[in-house]
Amino acid sequence: MTTTTTSPATRTTTAVGIVGGGPAGLMLSHLLARAGVPSVVVDARSREEIYATVRAGILEHRTVRSLVEDGVSDRVLREGYEHCGIELAFAGARHRIDFADLVGASAWLYPQTEVFKDLADARERDGGDVRFGVSDTRVVDLEGPNPGIRYRDAAGDEHEIRCAHLVGADGSRSTCRRQVPADAATQIGREYPFAWFGFLCDAPPSAEELVYSHSPHGFALVSQRTETVQRMYFQCDADEDPAAWDADRIWAEMDRRTRVNGLELRTGTIRDPAVLRFRSFVHTPLRHGRMLLAGDAAHTVPPTGAKGLNLALADVRRLAPALVRAVRDGDETGLAEYTERALERVWRAQHFSYWMTTMLHTGADGSEFDRRRQEAELRTLVASRAGRQFLAEGYTGWPADED
Amino acid sequence: MTTTTTSPATRTTTAVGIVGGGPAGLMLSHLLARAGVPSVVVDARSREEIYATVRAGILEHRTVRSLVEDGVSDRVLREGYEHCGIELAFAGARHRIDFADLVGASAWLYPQTEVFKDLADARERDGGDVRFGVSDTRVVDLEGPNPGIRYRDAAGDEHEIRCAHLVGADGSRSTCRRQVPADAATQIGREYPFAWFGFLCDAPPSAEELVYSHSPHGFALVSQRTETVQRMYFQCDADEDPAAWDADRIWAEMDRRTRVNGLELRTGTIRDPAVLRFRSFVHTPLRHGRMLLAGDAAHTVPPTGAKGLNLALADVRRLAPALVRAVRDGDETGLAEYTERALERVWRAQHFSYWMTTMLHTGADGSEFDRRRQEAELRTLVASRAGRQFLAEGYTGWPADED
Repeated sequence: MTTTTTSPATRTTTAVGIVGGGPAGLMLSHLLARAGVPSVVVDARSREEIYATVRAGILEHRTVRSLVEDGVSDRVLREGYEHCGIELAFAGARHRIDFADLVGASAWLYPQTEVFKDLADARERDGGDVRFGVSDTRVVDLEGPNPGIRYRDAAGDEHEIRCAHLVGADGSRSTCRRQVPADAATQIGREYPFAWFGFLCDAPPSAEELVYSHSPHGFALVSQRTETVQRMYFQCDADEDPAAWDADRIWAEMDRRTRVNGLELRTGTIRDPAVLRFRSFVHTPLRHGRMLLAGDAAHTVPPTGAKGLNLALADVRRLAPALVRAVRDGDETGLAEYTERALERVWRAQHFSYWMTTMLHTGADGSEFDRRRQEAELRTLVASRAGRQFLAEGYTGWPADED
Repeated sequence: MTTTTTSPATRTTTAVGIVGGGPAGLMLSHLLARAGVPSVVVDARSREEIYATVRAGILEHRTVRSLVEDGVSDRVLREGYEHCGIELAFAGARHRIDFADLVGASAWLYPQTEVFKDLADARERDGGDVRFGVSDTRVVDLEGPNPGIRYRDAAGDEHEIRCAHLVGADGSRSTCRRQVPADAATQIGREYPFAWFGFLCDAPPSAEELVYSHSPHGFALVSQRTETVQRMYFQCDADEDPAAWDADRIWAEMDRRTRVNGLELRTGTIRDPAVLRFRSFVHTPLRHGRMLLAGDAAHTVPPTGAKGLNLALADVRRLAPALVRAVRDGDETGLAEYTERALERVWRAQHFSYWMTTMLHTGADGSEFDRRRQEAELRTLVASRAGRQFLAEGYTGWPADED
């Protein structure tokens, strides 16, 4: 093994080096370990910091099945909330999309931070090598046979991990992705002219399932977190400043977008107000030399479709067996196919997110034509079993054999 | 009866005066006659002129059933072509949407001019009062109890038709619609950044059913007319000049948008090249005083969904019984509900046309993101029976009870 740096560093050698200790990186490490392939995970954030971040909370049924069947935890089944449908609210009425009846599947309300906790606990339980709170992370020798991750620990000491394969699962501001030369990749994206204003609220649920509310004043989403905490969102300008919104103004805005469709909101103390940006983004290819990208590092979807975490975990469920074959048998077929196969699902999710977004939000021009057309689309959709089923298939997650 | 004009004119009195002798006006007159309600139809064009105009050719199954069951003609069943599906071609392959299997219905290829001929023949057969080739048509006294239509005949003589109800079925440049004061109606519309270049071609069909072809170079539609004539279209700029296109250039353009998806076009002499504009438009309400609007006079859809003629005939199928009740029983409930009930279907069709258009055409920005997203949408759609069924429901026509 050769190195390109001469600085003194504590060396580790492993099969797969993983940058990013969020759900994608930890799940990959977990799946590799179950197949007997060692890995090391590093993350700049502390475990507590990751756990404290408020994130999305809807899991596809396949994501839940994987967490349980792949041996991470069955806590989701005990503490998560199974949602057998959602509601679409528009033109003065609420309409249920009955997932159980339409596709025999459900979605689960289980915050991403709980998925993270389950994965971090499982890696700890199984003796996984996960290093949180590192700094100055760099990746080196991506093109060579033994790429590396370099970082400093809390004491300031330099470390180097050398591996056969390196995985960038380090989120939307990915350090790894930035190592790919501009002429070796394509970035395909789309901006949306709005964002979501999201907040937590100390009150019991206003509805049993998620309610997607279309109104002339813009979109609002009424969701839940626990028996005593709600999660709510409303469409806002892309450059909205959360500080400009006091509780009265927030409730007035939520109210006028939901009461018109027959919802009565339960109010309470507002916590963690934040503006979530809307962006669609795909980086391709997902493989560069001996580095592979997964999850938010490679693609971002708007939050409307609740697909971000599910896509990240779908990526690593595809990537793990490909890495196992490469490490154990020297067969890189799976790695060679990874980009195309993984991005098929990513593009489906990009469209699904775009569809849910453009069907429910007030457009940039806010035209009367678009509002009426959206209402007609929603009306046609809920009146048709095929339409409801098509939406339910996307929401709960397409079959794996369609990837 | 009072009149607002003193000029000498030959007077006719009838229950329903209809401006416009296209399919909507003639079908309305036919349906009224079957219920014993007299009407008079006037049109500025000659019968030959209307028959010579190349127009759309796809009928929903309900439109066909109505032509037959309402006693217009069963010629469509003998000379029309029943299409039990369409093809969506994209990303290098062709995918069939099997209407018969999915919704137990079909669409019929039968040009609008043949529908016109059947209706004109039926009105002639039944002794209907239809006056083609009039000039200087005006409508008067819309607000009064006996509105009127005034026109000059070929000899220059003035005529006046007084009626209890006046119907404007005089197409997208409707004279009747323009009589509605600006503050008494709303016009809701949308322009699209492209058009269709359409032409006839003397050659046998290149495909058995309509092929909607999505390509990086733009959309193309391969359709049929008879065993020896094809009808073809390709997406072009809104201000395209047909004179700038010779046969070689037309075929090269059609070819690069279809061959990539596995289609081999049969070529032949090109006739009647024309640019079809794309516009969505809805005028509301459909009732002003004693005048009612129907068909293109009240709404326009882009050609992608093949809905224009079907909507016009759906309008008059709803309007006819409402007029019969009003004339026979003095009960105007149906007329009062006409706008809301008819526009429900119109808005559904507006969305369906918008959906087919935006799914298949290269967008204004022509971005790589949109192309990939469209391909993913098409892939998801054809992979899902529910998705294919949802599209088939819209294409063949939603059930009447969903209006």
